[in-house]
Order: sequence, then structure tokens, then C-alpha cells
Amino acid sequence: MADGEFHKTKRQRGGRSQRREARVGVEQGTHRPYIIRGIPTYDILSDESLTAIEATAERLLAEVGIELREDTESMQLYKRAGAQVTEQTEGVWRIKFEPGMLREILKTAPAEFTQHARNPANNVRIGGKNVVFAPSYGSPFVMDLDRGRRYGTIEDFRNFVKLAQSSPWLHHSGGTVCEPTDVPVNKRHLDMIYSHIRYSDRGFLGSITAAERAADSVEMARILFGSEFTDANCVVMGNFNTTSPLVIDGITAAGIRTYAAANQGSIHLPFLLGGAVAPLTTAGMVAQGLAESMASCALTQLVRPGSPAILASFFSSMSLRTGSPTFGTPEPAIGSLAMGQLARRLNLPLRCAGNFSTSKLPDGQAMQQSMMSMMSAVQGGANYVLHSAGFLDGLLSMSYEKLVMDTDMCGALHAYLDGMAVNEDTLAFDALAEFGPGQHLFSTQHTLRHYETAYWDSALDDNQPWETWDEQGGIDYAQRANTRWKKLLHEYEAPPLDEAIDEALQDFMTRRKAEMVDMWY
Amino acid sequence: MADGEFHKTKRQRGGRSQRREARVGVEQGTHRPYIIRGIPTYDILSDESLTAIEATAERLLAEVGIELREDTESMQLYKRAGAQVTEQTEGVWRIKFEPGMLREILKTAPAEFTQHARNPANNVRIGGKNVVFAPSYGSPFVMDLDRGRRYGTIEDFRNFVKLAQSSPWLHHSGGTVCEPTDVPVNKRHLDMIYSHIRYSDRGFLGSITAAERAADSVEMARILFGSEFTDANCVVMGNFNTTSPLVIDGITAAGIRTYAAANQGSIHLPFLLGGAVAPLTTAGMVAQGLAESMASCALTQLVRPGSPAILASFFSSMSLRTGSPTFGTPEPAIGSLAMGQLARRLNLPLRCAGNFSTSKLPDGQAMQQSMMSMMSAVQGGANYVLHSAGFLDGLLSMSYEKLVMDTDMCGALHAYLDGMAVNEDTLAFDALAEFGPGQHLFSTQHTLRHYETAYWDSALDDNQPWETWDEQGGIDYAQRANTRWKKLLHEYEAPPLDEAIDEALQDFMTRRKAEMVDMWY
Repeated sequence: MADGEFHKTKRQRGGRSQRREARVGVEQGTHRPYIIRGIPTYDILSDESLTAIEATAERLLAEVGIELREDTESMQLYKRAGAQVTEQTEGVWRIKFEPGMLREILKTAPAEFTQHARNPANNVRIGGKNVVFAPSYGSPFVMDLDRGRRYGTIEDFRNFVKLAQSSPWLHHSGGTVCEPTDVPVNKRHLDMIYSHIRYSDRGFLGSITAAERAADSVEMARILFGSEFTDANCVVMGNFNTTSPLVIDGITAAGIRTYAAANQGSIHLPFLLGGAVAPLTTAGMVAQGLAESMASCALTQLVRPGSPAILASFFSSMSLRTGSPTFGTPEPAIGSLAMGQLARRLNLPLRCAGNFSTSKLPDGQAMQQSMMSMMSAVQGGANYVLHSAGFLDGLLSMSYEKLVMDTDMCGALHAYLDGMAVNEDTLAFDALAEFGPGQHLFSTQHTLRHYETAYWDSALDDNQPWETWDEQGGIDYAQRANTRWKKLLHEYEAPPLDEAIDEALQDFMTRRKAEMVDMWY
Repeated sequence: MADGEFHKTKRQRGGRSQRREARVGVEQGTHRPYIIRGIPTYDILSDESLTAIEATAERLLAEVGIELREDTESMQLYKRAGAQVTEQTEGVWRIKFEPGMLREILKTAPAEFTQHARNPANNVRIGGKNVVFAPSYGSPFVMDLDRGRRYGTIEDFRNFVKLAQSSPWLHHSGGTVCEPTDVPVNKRHLDMIYSHIRYSDRGFLGSITAAERAADSVEMARILFGSEFTDANCVVMGNFNTTSPLVIDGITAAGIRTYAAANQGSIHLPFLLGGAVAPLTTAGMVAQGLAESMASCALTQLVRPGSPAILASFFSSMSLRTGSPTFGTPEPAIGSLAMGQLARRLNLPLRCAGNFSTSKLPDGQAMQQSMMSMMSAVQGGANYVLHSAGFLDGLLSMSYEKLVMDTDMCGALHAYLDGMAVNEDTLAFDALAEFGPGQHLFSTQHTLRHYETAYWDSALDDNQPWETWDEQGGIDYAQRANTRWKKLLHEYEAPPLDEAIDEALQDFMTRRKAEMVDMWY
């Protein structure tokens, strides 16, 4: 070997080693605080159809109205704003809104806002072209391949927060990533919020299950961010469900007021199961969802104009054979795309869809349903996608394996939402001209230049030849996911947290817990 | 019970029984000959980007050109049409096309056409808003959960034709549903075509692997449909691959001429693996695909103007870690959406994407990748979707389980493509007004009226409560699919075939086989 060639080879080796490092970077994923979509939304309905849905929503609000229960203050806010209020029984009011009234009230709600994270690099921008992925929310059960299905515990909760934090493809720590059923019902919100703060440095959701728990959530956020900062910025959000059809209960209304008064964010979600609590024709379901979410969102603006509110929808169909809810099916996916169009016409951020499935295992059904649902979220323009990872069993179970499958899919959706760059370099005329017809492009300048960044690189898919895969034991996707979540948990390192803040949070929790007798239901 | 009530109950029973029948109808699926899309296509690129891709395709055709090999007749057709032809070596020509020339030639190709099936109820309309699903094509291996991966046989081939025919959600019998490797290479096209005709009454693809096999395909179609009818109508199609990058080989060119001369359909598919036979930036890959497919399509119009030709693309990415092709990834999905836009600007029918996956098992990876890829086909406006069912192992294996998973997904995509009806009935104001806020809709008139038709009903998904599913053995999706394909094969009944035609087809096969010595490669 000549001297010059030796040096050349050394340089090439250097190049290869650099590439390998870059590749590991791609493999582990380069975290972005949130996605800015590079492709347009998928608009499936005509203006005429959208107008008809809006008109039906307005008619529902004007003629049927919303039933508000047990929150006099909210009743008065609606009344003062001009709604027609009729008391039906004591503490139960029917509230009717003239067409256009809620739309007018909602004009003070921001089209986009920032939720701050304790690590400012993880602040998320919600609304507009931005997309934020957060893990699944609210399952009483947890599942993994080793231990099967069981009630969730605070240890599971911490594990899910850690796994979510480990993923470069999630942007937000979520809220009730599972119900920690080994902690008393009236105290678990404290442990949940503390776990989000301690084990993640991303944004999170607070509690909404009682007015005082909502207040505790805001209080803990104040300890973390300071009172002044919290009053001026969104640092925590609450995820509120209407009681469909067309009811807002008192706990929800009071919780919404608590977050809005503190200038914190809130999500306003009708959970619509067609045929049960909503019409089973999609157009009607969407109209109802819009009506309920607008009425709920509007309350925030009556409390504090300008406070952040997120329009939301959760659509589910019904199995004709069992009457059970079904998730990840085509009709709700179509409904979610329409909801995206309606949210843009309202100029409000949207929470919509997620990695939904009815499957009881992290199998083909799970991922097929999830992908159909999740595509509707990202194509439809959802800005905050709760349930982006872990959802199984019709939301009854949070799955360890599904969580890492879903985060990997979220990674693929980063590449999908980046869309296609079209410029002289990517059009690659020279790449084909360099060697001409019939010649492979492996060694063209263009290939060498783009090799490491051209394609999404899954950490979980097996893309090897069959023979290699077979020699390595022929492991299926679920088992690889099982190995992966254990590895991620093992390698997890908590992000640093200021000791004084940690102590203050723990003091607050200790004091609040001491003030309450344990409640288990 | 009063007399009147008794009668009422009897009538209700009658109603219920009718409903049950209708439900079974939904369960088994109501076959439609093809889908007419009810939602718009998903257009992700701006006109400016599309124009830039088209300009690059034209520049490739004008400056680099296409290499044509060993088919003097095609060379002369291109030359006579005005292309610049240079002989590079004997029987190898570089063909260059002035910008706009191919687009002009392609104006005689139909934007839509009908492929006739032997059962006229199964005729498919290809182009425009129509979507046709056909099973996967070309795998040398087959797989099932019981026997694993093995070379395909003619028995497997027949099984796949029968399974495809059993599904209400496929519209076309496809072509090489697997390679029947136990039949000599030079004779298997006869058995394949016969199997399609015998075991299915839907449209099918003929052979393209040699000029005489293409001729045999057309001849068998003539026996089935009559010579006169065949000359006036498309009754068989050939699926032709370019030899990327930028080459059309002689066997392909001769085959294309054979189908076009007989007025039969042809698909013109560059199979593009980014980084290997195409640039790994998506814009360049799409430009190359457009150039190759246009050049190939144009040959049909030079042979017989007005003969049906289908623009096509097959995009695949590459694993950065192994150099292996990857399927069902985000970049090709984005490329397929763009290809849809380009096909519409050319006013040509499109074949694009399918249920692609690299997985070696019918697991979560398989269905996640498949759904991402398949969504790009149906959202992007593909008209003929080959590889709609059975695709595993990067196209190397046809899977029995995946086939029934994919056909079920195709059913869901029927509902998806139907989109959302928006009218007074579906907007369902009355359904919510009937009982008002807080009341379930189970028994509203609207629910009863729409109950059986509102939602897509999967035959394979498990949507039961966890407890029921667990009591029934906790069966996963793959195992349910295993049970299902066996049941479908067991219950399969061949559609009737005219005895004289059957005899004529068998005579033709016997004669043709006697004329050839077995070839095994």
C-alpha cells in the first residue's frame, strides 16, 4: 500500500466513524420540542358541509341548550354574558345560547400559546401549524407481556413518565398516564404531579377530578415556576370532559374556572361514543362535539379573557355485534379530519384523536387501528395529541409494549409531517446524470451527501433480511418492544431538579396529605 | 298480554330477524365492484413544487434519456415519434425526448377505462375517482403461522386466488399472487392465468416475463371473452417494470407492445429503492419515477393510440443500518401522495403503494407499516392498488394471515373512502333533541334507523370487553387470522364457469405445454 493511499484510507476511516456517530444520533432520535408541520392539512369537507355542521351546532346550543349542574358561579357567568338560563331543578340549569354568541366570546381565546416546561428547551407551542405528542391518559389498568393486565400503581405511573421522557418523539409528559390505584383517590393527584415534575422536564397536565385538586395542581405549578411567572404564562393544563350529551357537571365547571382564573390552559373534550352519548352518524357526532366543546371553552373566556383554551374531540364508534365501543375505526377518523377544519374556522387550537385501539394485546390489530386514528390527528391538524403512546384495550389499559411501539410511530410521523423538500439538491438531477441509465446510485455524491439524513430510522422495526432475522431468533414486534422498554427504563436518568424546589414540592404534598383523610373511591 | 300488543311484538320480532340478516350481510361484507371515492385526495405539494418535479422529469428524459435494450421495433416507434435515438452498443439505444413530447403522446391514453371481468358484475373502472384493490404480486415465498416460510407452489397460488375471491373487500384477482415454483418457469403463466379464471370471476393480470407468455395471456383472454370483444375491450392487463434507473429492457418493451397491440391494459412501474436505483431524496425519486413511467406508458400509444395505460410508482426507502430496503415508511408515503397529484395533472390512471411491510410476521410492525403505506394509496388517489393484501417480508413472502388482515383493512378503507354524508338526517338534530341533555341515545328513532349501517364492522378485530376476550382464550390478531383463512378456504365455492370455455382453456394449455421443454430458471 502506498503512503498516500494509507493516509487516504485513514481519512476514510475517520469519515466512516463520524458517520457512525451521526447514525447513532439518528437512531436515538434528535428531540425537537414540538413539530411544525411541513405539509398541508387534509381537508375532506366542503365549506357547505362545514357550514351545515356549524349551523347544527349553533341550533343545538340555541334550541336544546347545555345542562349545567351544581356550579352557580358558572351559571352566573353564562347568564351575565347573555345566555338564556332556566333552572330545571335545584342546581340544574338549562343554558341556551343565541347563534353566534359563543363564537363571539371565543374571539378572545388565543389561536396559539406556549405551555412552558421546567426545561425551557421543552416549551411547547400549541396551535397553528404545531403538533405536540403526549402519552395516553386515564387507564385504570396497565399491561405488559410478562405480567399481563393488572391495576396501575404509582410505580407504573413513574415508569410511564420515565419511558415517555426517554423518547425523543414525545413532546409533553401528559397527565394521568395511568391511575395509580395504590394511592388514595383524593391524594393521588399530588403524587402524579410530583412524578411528572421529578421524572420529566417537559410540560404536563394537572388534576381535574375535584375543584381542590385543580387548585393543588396550579399551586404545585406555582412552586415550580413562581407565582408571578405562572400568572403571566401557561405552565400547566387541565383536561376536562363534558358529560355528553350536552351536560357540563359542577366539578368540571369549577375546575375549568380554577385553571382559567390562574391563566392556565384547559382542554375541553366531549368523549363521544356514537349511538350511546352521541348520534351514530358522523356529521351529527361532530356537530354535537363542536357544540359541547365551544360551550365549555367559552367558560374560560368568561372567567379570564385571553386564557388559553383548547377545542377538543374524541370520537368512538360502536361494535354492531356487542354494543362495545370501538376505537381506531374509519368513521371516527373521518370525523377527526372534519374537526380539524372546524377548529381552524374557529381559530382555536385542537386536541384530537390519538393512538386508539380496542385490541387487548400489542398486536397487528392494535397497530392497524392506532395508525388509522393517529393519521387522522396529524393529517387533520390536531395541535395537542393526547393518547399518542400506550393506548390499548379501549383506553382501559396502558401498555408498556404499546408505549414504545407508539413512540416509534410518533418518530415516523415526525418525518411524515416534515413532508417533501423540493429544491435543486433534492430533485437530484445530477445524481442520475452522474453515472447514467442502468447504474446504481450507491456511490454518487448525492447519495453520500444525504445518506445519514434521508430516511426515518426506526429503533423498533426489523428491516433485516429474513435469514438474518431468523438466525437472531425470529423475534416478533411485541417481544422486541418488551426488551426495549426494559432497556429504556434501565438506562433512564432523571433530569436535574433544583433541590429547594424539590423540597418545597414535597413539603406541600406532605402538608396537603396530612390535611385529608384517605379516600378510596 | 293484549292481542294488539302480541301482534306488535310479533312484528317487532320480524323486524329484529330482518335486522339480524342485514347484520350478517354487513359482517360478511357487501361486495362492491370497486370504490368510488367520496372524499377529496390529499394534495400535499404546491403547484410550484409539482412543476419543479415535472421539469426535472422532462430534463432527465431530454438530457440523460432512457436506455432501451434489444427491442428494435420499440426503438423505431420512439424514433418515428420524434425521439432522438443513439445506438450505444449493438441493440442498446439511448432515447432522448424533447420536453413535452411524451406528455403530448400520452394525450391519446384514456383517463379512465373498464377492465372487464368474466362476471360482468365485477367489471372494474380504472381511473378518475375509482379505487380498485388487488392482492399482492410476485413473492417467491409464502408464509403461514403453522408451516412458516417456504417456496410458493401452485396449490398456494390457487389458495390465494380463492381467498382473494372470498373477500368482499377486494375487487380484482391480481396476477402472480405468489410464484408457483413447483411449475416450470416457462409454463407457470398458463397455470396462473387458468387459476385466476377458474377460481375467481374478477379481473386479473396476465404474464409479462417473456413476449410469448404475454401473447399466451392475451390468447387465453380471447378464449374466455371472444376475439372480437377482446379487441374492443380491456379484459386483461400486464404489470411491467422498468429496469431502474432509466432503462427499459427488451422483454418488457416487447410485452408492452403485445398488450397494447391487442388493446389490453398495461401498468408501467418503476420499482424505486432510494439510494440504490433512485436518488434517496424523495423529490428526485418521484421525478425519476414520473420520467420512467411516462416513457414506458408512451410506448403503448405509439403502438395503438387509445389503448389503456396506467402510470405507476413503487417507492421504497433504505435502512441506514443494514442497507436493506424498507417498506411502509414515511418518506415513500409522502412520495406516493405527490405521485397522485402528478398523475392527475397527466390525466392518467395511477397504480401506487399498497399494504407494504418489511416485517417477517403478521405482527404490529406489519400492520403499522401497511396502514401508513395503504393510506397514502387511498388518500393520494391511486386507482389500481396492487399489493392490497398479503404483502410481508419486503415482498419476498405472501402471508396467509396477512392476507386476511389486509382484506379486513381494505373493508375499513371502503368506509373511510365513503367519507361523511352531511344532510339533515346525518346531522341528527332531532336525535339529540328527542330526549335532551344527559340522556343516552340508544333508543332514539335516529339510532334505531341507522344502527345497522352506521359503522364499518370488522370480521377480524376483537372489540369485546377484556373479560370476554380473556374468557375466550385471549387470542391475538395473528391467531384469529390463522383461523379465519382456514375457515374461508374451507367454505370457498368456485364461481360457475362455462364448460366449453373451461375445456378450450385446458386444451390451449395442454397444447402450449406440449410445445415447450420444461425450463426451471
